[in-house]
Amino acid sequence: MGAKPKIKTKLGGRLSSLLKEEKQGKTETFVIGGGRLFRSLCEIFLDNGRKSVIETPEKEDSTTAMAPHGKGSDASEEAMVAQVEGRRISTIVIIIAMQAEALPVVNKLQLKEEHSSGFPKEVPWVRYHGVYKDLNIHLVWPGKDLTLGVDGIGTISAALVTYAAIQALQPDLIINAGTAGGFKAKGADIGDVFLASDIAFHDRRIPIPVFDLYGVGQRQACSTPNLLKEVNLKAGKLSTGDSLDMSPHDETAIVANDATLKDMEGAAIAYVADLFKIPAIFIKAVTDIVDGDKPTPEEFLQNLAAVTAALGQAVIQVIDFINGKCLSEF
Amino acid sequence: MGAKPKIKTKLGGRLSSLLKEEKQGKTETFVIGGGRLFRSLCEIFLDNGRKSVIETPEKEDSTTAMAPHGKGSDASEEAMVAQVEGRRISTIVIIIAMQAEALPVVNKLQLKEEHSSGFPKEVPWVRYHGVYKDLNIHLVWPGKDLTLGVDGIGTISAALVTYAAIQALQPDLIINAGTAGGFKAKGADIGDVFLASDIAFHDRRIPIPVFDLYGVGQRQACSTPNLLKEVNLKAGKLSTGDSLDMSPHDETAIVANDATLKDMEGAAIAYVADLFKIPAIFIKAVTDIVDGDKPTPEEFLQNLAAVTAALGQAVIQVIDFINGKCLSEF
Repeated sequence: MGAKPKIKTKLGGRLSSLLKEEKQGKTETFVIGGGRLFRSLCEIFLDNGRKSVIETPEKEDSTTAMAPHGKGSDASEEAMVAQVEGRRISTIVIIIAMQAEALPVVNKLQLKEEHSSGFPKEVPWVRYHGVYKDLNIHLVWPGKDLTLGVDGIGTISAALVTYAAIQALQPDLIINAGTAGGFKAKGADIGDVFLASDIAFHDRRIPIPVFDLYGVGQRQACSTPNLLKEVNLKAGKLSTGDSLDMSPHDETAIVANDATLKDMEGAAIAYVADLFKIPAIFIKAVTDIVDGDKPTPEEFLQNLAAVTAALGQAVIQVIDFINGKCLSEF
Repeated sequence: MGAKPKIKTKLGGRLSSLLKEEKQGKTETFVIGGGRLFRSLCEIFLDNGRKSVIETPEKEDSTTAMAPHGKGSDASEEAMVAQVEGRRISTIVIIIAMQAEALPVVNKLQLKEEHSSGFPKEVPWVRYHGVYKDLNIHLVWPGKDLTLGVDGIGTISAALVTYAAIQALQPDLIINAGTAGGFKAKGADIGDVFLASDIAFHDRRIPIPVFDLYGVGQRQACSTPNLLKEVNLKAGKLSTGDSLDMSPHDETAIVANDATLKDMEGAAIAYVADLFKIPAIFIKAVTDIVDGDKPTPEEFLQNLAAVTAALGQAVIQVIDFINGKCLSEF
């Protein structure tokens, strides 16, 4: 694709001042404890006008696994993980951003729209519900924007419905399903269905130590080696942003995220699921190749029905696999 | 600043296929009703694999005023607006993204941290509360990220705490206060405190008709002509994005938003407040000039304390003004 365009970046807003302050060397240093999964951080923050650098004693991993872990000791965390991983999955919340992506799943699982959605009356969010095999399944989508009438896509709606669904429905597992762009350089092809192993943002650039990691917001999906074998889906990393297009800045971040897939909700759902330590699975079906030659309109039109069908089929396969199982068997 | 760098954009993900489909001319046309404040839309969406264009009969305004309005008829909406505007403000939720921005306000209003925050036990969100004059005031900030320890800045945390605060606290008014970058070309100077009149996103590019407007997500703040006069604050438009820097794409969108100010939360808070028709005010203090020559570190360091103090002072002035008043007197 030739030389990369030069990217102009200019810091703005409140935090740039902190960087400047750092250069003045006016810092204090503290040592804090850290969770099992994230240590050895350097934090710069502003506290009552005071600037601080925090260093933690050791580094194990720079990501957060979405397998449940508490804020307590390693022992209590491990006990909690074992307890959750050994419990059979009973209630699943499926989160899907667009009606067109949701309806094949609704139909295949014979879910019914619940007019008492469990959500506030003011929001357009829609909940479908049904019992499928031994599973209590809720499918939630953000509905149509109240002002504009289009599907409530993107990270903010996704985060809100995930939060509200967790509060209202207390799921054992979250499944985010949807279509996505794929990168052929990373092995994606039209119609492929992936389980995302890692999820991160590509449009939250905060170039300050630790805030940069917060912006990227990397999370790991629930580990699913057996599921991957049984349903024969591909595995790849997913990168999320609120824009449909891909700017040079986005592209740089997507490459840094080592992503095979690009969507508009995944990392927001992963963030909220992780807040509540609910394991999450991300099923993404490729509708277009981001790094390919522009497919013809006919190609897109031709692929669309098949991709939506493939996505619905994959969701059912995943749910059939999950039925009767514990997390540790995934 | 010389010639603009060339911006390379490539559509990706599921929605690009819709654009292609449109070019095939395979559309259907419907006419739908619309709210008082938004008509004459053209919508392209995917519904069960079907492509549709929706046209609404008339256009009055392409933005949504945050003054309350329902989904019903013009008459019922107007009655509702009158009712809400005539009610004296009693409960205020102040939403602030960073602890350093929050503490001056907490201290000046003598708010106390509530250990039973009203939020789920898993989240780091913090609520302060107090009675000030005739007002019941809650100040909410998203707390420190549980994994990384930095302030939970950005749109997703802001949207979540706004949603949860509305559910838990049922405010009559939301005030979002914080620091921001300012554009000198639009009249901003270091230390200026603004009331934002309009709020929109600059990093949600969805180049499909109607989805583009959804991405921009423009909202209007509560109209405050009397407040502006009395407390002598500046007025300007605010543009929100999840990055601290400003990419060329962001800059283009910020210019399109006609923004004087750039922050990382405002439009997300405006979106959620608008969902629930809660009026909202945005108080933003300028810590740096985005379109200026790079200020020296000394300038930043020198400005920071003053700007935080000015922000706190302005919040108190606004609250003093609000005390005892109805929205219609703002």
